[in-house]
Amino acid sequence: MRLVLDAMGGDHAPEAPVRGALLFAREHPEHEVVLVGAPARLDACLAREGGAPGNVHPYPATEVVEMEEDAFAAIRRKKDSSLRVGFELVRRGEAQALVSAGHSGAVMAGALLLLGRLPGVERPAIATLLPTLKGAGHCLLLDSGANVECRPVHLAQWAVLGSAYMRALLGIERPRVAVLSNGEEPSKGTALTREASALLRRSELHFTGYVEGRSLFSGDVEVVVTDGFTGNVVLKTTEGAAAGVTGLLRSAIERGGLPLKLGALLLRPIFAGLKTRLDYAEVGGAPLLGIEGVGIVAHGRSSPRAIQQALVAALRNAEAGLRAELTRCIAQAASWLPVRQRGGTRGLSEEQRGARR
Amino acid sequence: MRLVLDAMGGDHAPEAPVRGALLFAREHPEHEVVLVGAPARLDACLAREGGAPGNVHPYPATEVVEMEEDAFAAIRRKKDSSLRVGFELVRRGEAQALVSAGHSGAVMAGALLLLGRLPGVERPAIATLLPTLKGAGHCLLLDSGANVECRPVHLAQWAVLGSAYMRALLGIERPRVAVLSNGEEPSKGTALTREASALLRRSELHFTGYVEGRSLFSGDVEVVVTDGFTGNVVLKTTEGAAAGVTGLLRSAIERGGLPLKLGALLLRPIFAGLKTRLDYAEVGGAPLLGIEGVGIVAHGRSSPRAIQQALVAALRNAEAGLRAELTRCIAQAASWLPVRQRGGTRGLSEEQRGARR
Repeated sequence: MRLVLDAMGGDHAPEAPVRGALLFAREHPEHEVVLVGAPARLDACLAREGGAPGNVHPYPATEVVEMEEDAFAAIRRKKDSSLRVGFELVRRGEAQALVSAGHSGAVMAGALLLLGRLPGVERPAIATLLPTLKGAGHCLLLDSGANVECRPVHLAQWAVLGSAYMRALLGIERPRVAVLSNGEEPSKGTALTREASALLRRSELHFTGYVEGRSLFSGDVEVVVTDGFTGNVVLKTTEGAAAGVTGLLRSAIERGGLPLKLGALLLRPIFAGLKTRLDYAEVGGAPLLGIEGVGIVAHGRSSPRAIQQALVAALRNAEAGLRAELTRCIAQAASWLPVRQRGGTRGLSEEQRGARR
Repeated sequence: MRLVLDAMGGDHAPEAPVRGALLFAREHPEHEVVLVGAPARLDACLAREGGAPGNVHPYPATEVVEMEEDAFAAIRRKKDSSLRVGFELVRRGEAQALVSAGHSGAVMAGALLLLGRLPGVERPAIATLLPTLKGAGHCLLLDSGANVECRPVHLAQWAVLGSAYMRALLGIERPRVAVLSNGEEPSKGTALTREASALLRRSELHFTGYVEGRSLFSGDVEVVVTDGFTGNVVLKTTEGAAAGVTGLLRSAIERGGLPLKLGALLLRPIFAGLKTRLDYAEVGGAPLLGIEGVGIVAHGRSSPRAIQQALVAALRNAEAGLRAELTRCIAQAASWLPVRQRGGTRGLSEEQRGARR
């Protein structure tokens, strides 16, 4: 496989992406990484790391999409941006996946405009795999940030895509699917959650109804759908809570006496396991589900380790050949889920058309 | 002070409320608790606990508002429900606050219909005090579940009420206030968050803009406003994440060998501190801000300890005499925040009028 890495994306670019690419490339000599970015800066980074191994290929792009830019406008205007150049490589079939820790809205915009959507998909979603803390499994949360304004049909489609993904990639035969809400009773929720639930009750999915936020970690369900606003808030809240708990433990141990320090030493294997399980860097990146091709959104604060894991996620997604299965499931859902368009780059949402002007 | 406790509210009623009332009453002999509920069941519970001390007074109510009932309809129809009878006691001035672990929507409905709103307040909100994990302070999240459909003016009013509350109750002179969003850039968010932010930028509050979910625990802000759907999802997510992390630690230690068990023993004081800081039972209950009088929503799964702490919260709220300060701040905000009605029980929202039919 050949994977494209947007070397200019993320808070620590290009250093973290370059180092992450090298970590990945050394571990996977049979695969290749194309590092897209400003040539002089890439060369300097690579020189500091002792040069690029044979399976890492710098590729020039002179522009960068900045965090505060309008996503669609930037992708359209900055034709030589690392993100756009990277997506062009995937579009031309010269690479099988793209990873970026940059502007996640721009990654979505690039995927929509340059790769397009799978047939029948109205809106792609960012699908984040959360570790369940009971059951030691995973729960897929989508959308975790790409679509702030949503319609019920979007949530229902994400349920279809999420189920297919968990089956194809994690081997979960019949994933349980739920809609995130402010209570489990059907009377709870908003018009969006109630209408999405009504659609999903008619589906062939294993739909269990509403769940509250705590079920993201309980192992009770494998797929949770919500609008991208709520999904993003939930994700950042989880990060904050987990970081807070571990930080609180650490500072209490640091301030404490010898018995506490000895206790911490004895528990080190457990703390290390906990860190691995909670650290976003270990999860790598989140795929954009519903696009033609593989696009992975990595965390903006990605460390080299996080980039390495995002490349691993890209590799797994590309190798799984999900397109056929996702497309089959979306087509099959047409019996209960009427959609308005046929994929590709046509018929984008109003929000997206607005941004393209 | 005389505090009313809805003895029939909560998953473990009436046992947990009765035992919580006794814990509180023994610790606060100078205050009184009125236990409202089914006489025979209260008597049986009290007998099992060795009888009621002199400052605990059973008070009869034959009906109970059930969890699946429509909140407003139940409060209007069940005139002898423990919740309604309890609010009547507060309304007549025979008690200074009410605590319930029952149907939180019904607590809100009871407060709205029987006590009414403070002058100028459009919608009361549930205000939950979260422990910040850095800085060891607190962050007030409102609304955490009372209002699913909101307008920008509601969020702006909650910012006013929350600031006044943190100043009056916790002595924070100039609380920093933020709107919860899916990113810190002003271009992020929904129409609701953008319009609420526009209002708050014109205010005299210490408004810092948008925060992401992680700032609830970072100590960067003291008041965070959001709609009740998002607030509730965030709260349950936090509970789930914290419970998951501690559960993961516990099970790893239980499965482990002697060194791990010794380590856990040495770290016990830290784990105990962490539990105290994270346990909802220690926070007690969340006040309904914006109503006439003091109403405290306790967690549905409240243990006796949680009920005891909710009574402590009710006592602190009642003693603080917040009415004057909250009313003054709402009146002062009229210069930048136009509101449509004048408090009391008139002019309820469409949602609430709908429920009353």
